[in-house]
Formats: sequence, structure tokens, C-alpha cells
Amino acid sequence: MIERLCVIGVGLIGGSLARAVREAGFCQEVVGAGRNPQNLQAAVDLGVIDRYETDLGKAVSGADMVLVSVPLGAMAAVFDAISGHLAEHAVLTDAGSAKGSVIDAARQAFAGLPASFVPGHPIAGTEQSGVEASFAGLYRGRRVILTPLPETDGHALDLVRDMWEAAGAEVTEMDPLHHDTVLAATSHLPHVLAYALVESLASLSDDGEVFDYAAGGFRDFTRIASSDPVMWRDICLANGDAIQLMIEHFVADLQELTTAIENRDGQQLLDIFSSAKAARDRYVKE
Amino acid sequence: MIERLCVIGVGLIGGSLARAVREAGFCQEVVGAGRNPQNLQAAVDLGVIDRYETDLGKAVSGADMVLVSVPLGAMAAVFDAISGHLAEHAVLTDAGSAKGSVIDAARQAFAGLPASFVPGHPIAGTEQSGVEASFAGLYRGRRVILTPLPETDGHALDLVRDMWEAAGAEVTEMDPLHHDTVLAATSHLPHVLAYALVESLASLSDDGEVFDYAAGGFRDFTRIASSDPVMWRDICLANGDAIQLMIEHFVADLQELTTAIENRDGQQLLDIFSSAKAARDRYVKE
Repeated sequence: MIERLCVIGVGLIGGSLARAVREAGFCQEVVGAGRNPQNLQAAVDLGVIDRYETDLGKAVSGADMVLVSVPLGAMAAVFDAISGHLAEHAVLTDAGSAKGSVIDAARQAFAGLPASFVPGHPIAGTEQSGVEASFAGLYRGRRVILTPLPETDGHALDLVRDMWEAAGAEVTEMDPLHHDTVLAATSHLPHVLAYALVESLASLSDDGEVFDYAAGGFRDFTRIASSDPVMWRDICLANGDAIQLMIEHFVADLQELTTAIENRDGQQLLDIFSSAKAARDRYVKE
Repeated sequence: MIERLCVIGVGLIGGSLARAVREAGFCQEVVGAGRNPQNLQAAVDLGVIDRYETDLGKAVSGADMVLVSVPLGAMAAVFDAISGHLAEHAVLTDAGSAKGSVIDAARQAFAGLPASFVPGHPIAGTEQSGVEASFAGLYRGRRVILTPLPETDGHALDLVRDMWEAAGAEVTEMDPLHHDTVLAATSHLPHVLAYALVESLASLSDDGEVFDYAAGGFRDFTRIASSDPVMWRDICLANGDAIQLMIEHFVADLQELTTAIENRDGQQLLDIFSSAKAARDRYVKE
């Protein structure tokens, strides 16, 4: 329970958290902040935030908790802008999909990693974006990964955990590097593959003829290629090393499958497909 | 309008067609055929077929139309078994997801391509299989591709078209080779990628830990990896050449994207992602 939460970047992620913690009574006031007054006014009108500031230094001053939920490419600039303006007791956290780059940016902006900074990542979202798409239930039953460092203050960590749990999330902790590897595997690589596939098929013909014969499986498979290109550019820039490793790992496995096709090796194809189906049926809940 | 339809292979595809044409009054009797009497009896009990035969020669004798809806790997054996037993006026068609290999098998079994054979492929299906999953509406609004050859009789073609239209499908015609290329792109390649991705991630850890942090996008992206491994082995064996070409095309495009990540080339990443998103939003209906 805190008095004032400041959300920098009031879109789907920040807006949904604001809605959820207000609904849960976790804080008394939510101050929104960002560059776009129209968007912030819309957030006030929608009842997502109580008021807003476009000056980030002013926005964070007096806040007990600050959530930075801006695109990864904007993290460094936000940290620079709020550095020196946080209250002594303020806890700082973020919602970036890659953690190594955010931690580096914080370390640089604050001249060393602040003990009150708790890097975080809610595994939630839709292909939509913007505060209009936000809703209080976005985090219910979803995972939030916190990646505290040796420098991180235990009280700050507890408070961030409390906030996400108030929003209905299941909070786990992880080493930042491991987070970036796991997310490269389950999120960043699939997005890269979906974008590459759609782009590859689009280049087959000028009129998109092939897409006329796509069925439901294709629609599901490529849905994530309709995600925000700016967000995914930022993720690829921020977590490039881990993503590259995952692509290499994947291409090697794809090569094995391609060789089995080339050799018309029915048994190996059946083994690979059966093993993959078993893994998906076991681990992925529909 | 015909009197007797024989469906060889009464599963999701054959069973749904039987249900649909009976409902539409396109035929008076549906005879089911296959290897498994229990399955065929279930189809009778479900009201999908009127009666069944396990001897394929007997099953097709006297039928006006024969639909072969068995896995691609069983097509050749079915053609061999019915060769010499078809009625003089009978029209033969199939529902295989690859057309070149089915046409080759027919050419061999019948010692030359019969004029009454109309190769076909309904672009429909779910991850489920079996007659229990069949329903009359499966083909409503879906595409069916027929790939007639120079040898194909126009009357036979019209009758097969009528049958699929009676089931509610939108029928188009295509060269068999073009069909196999288009389907390799929109269906076979995505399935291969989904299987390869799940298998690749499963090999990262013994306990499937990475899957714990997968979100909805991953679930959608990998849904097709829960498809029937035997069916997909058969498709890879039957349409291997086209699939290999598509994989090569895709890997080259993925390599371009990987290089952009390696070079941290934000502009190129944004260009590729924006172009892919635009293509998907334009061509793929949600």
C-alpha cells in the first residue's frame, strides 16, 4: 500500500497497471507522465490516472513508486530526465521486455545502480497498444518477472512484488541474463520468425496471391507479425545478442529438419514432429 | 446431384464433406470405406455415413463419386485397391494437401491418368482429427482448390465443383505445381517452422522451463505444432521439393533480418517489421 504511484508512459502496459492497482486499492493517487498531453488527457478522461505531468522531473517528485513503462528505446532518456528528482524513499521499477539493456541504462543515468531500482517485466500484452486498450484484468494470472541485482534493496523488491500481486499477477524472480535468454526464446524469436515469414511470403508475388489460400493455422501463426514494429525494433536492438544466439540455435534445428525432408527420411520427420507436439501439448496451456 | 458417394477415409475431412453434402441433399447415399471397422461403425452411429465397407473394391463399385480422403502416404495403396473396380461413369477425386504426388500415384495405379480423376484440396481443417471432430459447416466459406489436368474430363470437373459448392466452399482452379508451391508457402512452411521452434526450445532445458514464461502470442504461434505428426510427415515426404525451396527462401530472408540485428540497424529492422505488418494487416483476415 502506497500513497502516490507515478506511471511514466501511459499505454497498454502502464495504463492497465494503473487501472489494476487503483481497483485493488493499492495506492491513493496515480500521476501519469509522458510526452503527449493528448494521450495523458485521454488517460484522465478514461479514469486511468488522476492527473498528469509532461515534465518528468515534476511527475516523479513526491511519488512513492515510479513505474517506467515506455518503449525500450526511450528508457535511457527517461532515466536521465528523472535522475535527481526521485524522492529519497521512492522505489523505481520498469516494465521493459529486455532487462540487461535497461539495467545498463539505469546504471549510466544514475551513476551506479540505485538500490531502489527493481527491474521488472510483466509477461502480458496484446497486439493492440495505447491507453484505450488498457484494462484492469490484463495481469490477472499472468507472470511478472523481477530481476533484482545484488545492489537491490529488499524493501524495494517487496513493494514492487506487492504492487504486481495487487494487480493479480504471479511474481517470480530471475537473473537478468537468464530472463533475456528465456524471453529471446519464447517471445523475441517467435516474433522475428513471424515477421520474417510474412515478409518472405509477401515477396513471392506483388499482389499477395499466396495469402488468399492461407487457412486458420496461418492466421494464428502470423498474428504476432501484426505487433508494433517500433516496439519490436527496440527489443531487437536491446536484446540483440540473446536473440542472435536463439536464431542460430533455431536455424541449426531447422537445418536438421530440412535435411530429413531432403533425404525423405520419414522416420526422422515423424520423430521430430512427435517430439515437438508432445512438448507443446505438455507445456503450453490452451 | 448424384445417387451414391463413396468416401474412403472417414475422418475430419471426409466425414465433414459427407455430413455437408447429405445436409445439402447433394446425394442420396454415402458409403464409407476404410481399414478400421470401429471407426466406420462410429461414423454410421454419428449419422455421417449410411453404411460402410472395408473392402475398397466393393466400396467403390456402383458409386457415382469417390472421394479419397486418406493421409497422403496411403493414397497410392488406395488407388491400387480401387483400380478396376470403379463404375464406368464414376468420378474420382481426392482431398490431399499436396497434388503432384497424388497425381503421380494415380497415374501409376491406373496406368495413365484417368479422365474422370479431378485432383482437389479443401483448405480447411483444425488441429483435431477423426470422424468425431467432423461437422457439416467445416467447408462453409472456405477455399477448395481443384487442379485439373489436360486429360481431365470437363463433366467430371463440374461435378466435383458442384459437390464442394454444395458443401458451402468457394472453388478455384490451379495448376498442380502452382498449388504445391502456394501451399508450401502458406501451410507447409509455417508448420515446419512451428514444429522446429517448439523442438528447438524444448532442447534448451529438460524440464520445459522456458515454456513457463510463454505468453498468448507464443500459444497462437505454436498451435499448429500440435497437429498430427503422421499427416505432416506425409506432407513433407509428398511435397518435399517445394517445401525445401520455401525453407531456403525463408532462411535467406531470416538471414537478412539477423544481419540487421547483428548490425543494430534500427532503420532496416523497422522497415522489415513495418512491411511485414502491413502485408499481414492487408492480406490476412482476422
